[in-house]
Amino acid sequence: METRQQQLERAVQAALASKMENIYFVACGGSMALFLPAQYILDRELATPSFVYTANEFVHREPKGLGADSVVVLCSHSGTTPETVNAAKLAREKGAITIAFSNEVGSPLWEAAEYGIQYDWGPESDAAQSNVGMLFKLVFNILNAKAPNEKYERALNTITKLKDILTRNKEQHEEAAKAFGSAYKREPLIYAMASGSCYGPTYAFAACLLQEMQWVHSNAIHSGEYFHGPFEVTDYDVPFVIVKGLDETRPLDERAEAFCKKFSERVVVIDAAEFDWTDVGEDLRKYFAYLIVNGLLRQYADWLAEHRGHPLSVRRYMWKMEY
Amino acid sequence: METRQQQLERAVQAALASKMENIYFVACGGSMALFLPAQYILDRELATPSFVYTANEFVHREPKGLGADSVVVLCSHSGTTPETVNAAKLAREKGAITIAFSNEVGSPLWEAAEYGIQYDWGPESDAAQSNVGMLFKLVFNILNAKAPNEKYERALNTITKLKDILTRNKEQHEEAAKAFGSAYKREPLIYAMASGSCYGPTYAFAACLLQEMQWVHSNAIHSGEYFHGPFEVTDYDVPFVIVKGLDETRPLDERAEAFCKKFSERVVVIDAAEFDWTDVGEDLRKYFAYLIVNGLLRQYADWLAEHRGHPLSVRRYMWKMEY
Repeated sequence: METRQQQLERAVQAALASKMENIYFVACGGSMALFLPAQYILDRELATPSFVYTANEFVHREPKGLGADSVVVLCSHSGTTPETVNAAKLAREKGAITIAFSNEVGSPLWEAAEYGIQYDWGPESDAAQSNVGMLFKLVFNILNAKAPNEKYERALNTITKLKDILTRNKEQHEEAAKAFGSAYKREPLIYAMASGSCYGPTYAFAACLLQEMQWVHSNAIHSGEYFHGPFEVTDYDVPFVIVKGLDETRPLDERAEAFCKKFSERVVVIDAAEFDWTDVGEDLRKYFAYLIVNGLLRQYADWLAEHRGHPLSVRRYMWKMEY
Repeated sequence: METRQQQLERAVQAALASKMENIYFVACGGSMALFLPAQYILDRELATPSFVYTANEFVHREPKGLGADSVVVLCSHSGTTPETVNAAKLAREKGAITIAFSNEVGSPLWEAAEYGIQYDWGPESDAAQSNVGMLFKLVFNILNAKAPNEKYERALNTITKLKDILTRNKEQHEEAAKAFGSAYKREPLIYAMASGSCYGPTYAFAACLLQEMQWVHSNAIHSGEYFHGPFEVTDYDVPFVIVKGLDETRPLDERAEAFCKKFSERVVVIDAAEFDWTDVGEDLRKYFAYLIVNGLLRQYADWLAEHRGHPLSVRRYMWKMEY
């Protein structure tokens, strides 16, 4: 059987051997959310157009740009998400290169896509081998092949240290996450806010951790959009979790934080500038911030779940019925 | 002075004379929301990649695909939105064709962009001359030039009847909108849900009409994403406004409605299949649904405002301070 590294290399080779006129990232919920930072990085570094679609929109919309010169990257943890499997089938019918990330070799998604990349999962696993880690490697391998740059090589070296980087930052945030869980446990609604490469994990926090796993109302407001409508809901008792990234859009988060804190007394900030950046070169930090944010938001949700006595594993509909 | 039609023609000519390797739609809040259906239609009809960005994300992200072969379409009602003005400046520096929609000739956005298209506004105005009407004409003129089709010409003829189409549908929905205002006036949170070309107006309903103009918590959930997280918040007393469009993604809305109605007793549905379609050819209805939805959601918000005694014009922060 192929190693993960071999799977990755085969997928990268296939993408590079194609015209790669465009790149579609297609998945649902949390898997879709992890594609958003990848699209941000590509948007910054490569002129090739890239898009993120929730799978069922992709399948029904059937973008006219999708064709034999497209690369379609998909992800489903179990590999059974029907919408994502259908997206892989559609993309393959159109002749696109299809690359699927999944925890499950041999799953329906794995079979539907031409190239599979298996990832690791769970508290004991190596974060560099996780969904975000393997996707990071796909993106930076493509970038490095398209326009070789020692910065990309350092990024690929640094990703191997992701587990330690995450561990240090989770330790740093443990008290804050615990305090968040206690102080916000009775909130029926918690807004989240971010921009740029950190918008993806923040969307997953709102949709998957808060709405799905805590039954807490939420909305991932874009820090730039905040001032064009949503900010009018801000009041002394309206809770916000604001993520400040380190990439080019950080000024948007800073502006949203400054305003929000003036009128709400319930603002929690996760600031990538304050992370423990040991082992990460200064110019690479903007690429790594969302990976740490992703881990920290899970930690904050873990403590919220603990204080609410509502485990993150509880569902009332998901996997329990037909829908 | 140029007529609106002349402004439009000049902008279309400029776009067509360029390589138009990609199209960026850039604005904030409600103006950004009205670009989303345009991007949907282009995605369906044209292989040229098109994108929608909130203006400040666009300015800071500075997508690498932006350049001399790009067309950048912007919109600001007053023409003073600083983020959008900056986006126009950036796009122009990069040599892109810049086309700005605004209610105000001579506004900062008007001056920053190379081509201006002035639109009409207000209850007495002709909807075909409004922001959505003029944008519709831009999109279908470009499509018709790229791949002439009598369907596109009929769409352009039909848009001239938009005012009557809207009037008839508003009359049809008057009682339902009034009932919504009364029945939902005490809700602190109302979710909205849609997909495809109707997602844009639904986003504007959540962010601008509910959050901004009513201080009601909201989130425009994508009907396809609903099942991958957000649906777990559904309960008997959680209110949803669901929009069912008529384009290719309608099955997503139907599925979301069927599930949502099983577990919530507070579901309001706006169904484009039930609209008064007089004067609109059957094959064109999928393109016109979002225009009617846009008008109806405003009508629903008008009645909510009436019953809440909170006029849509009230603000606490917007335009009242620096932010």
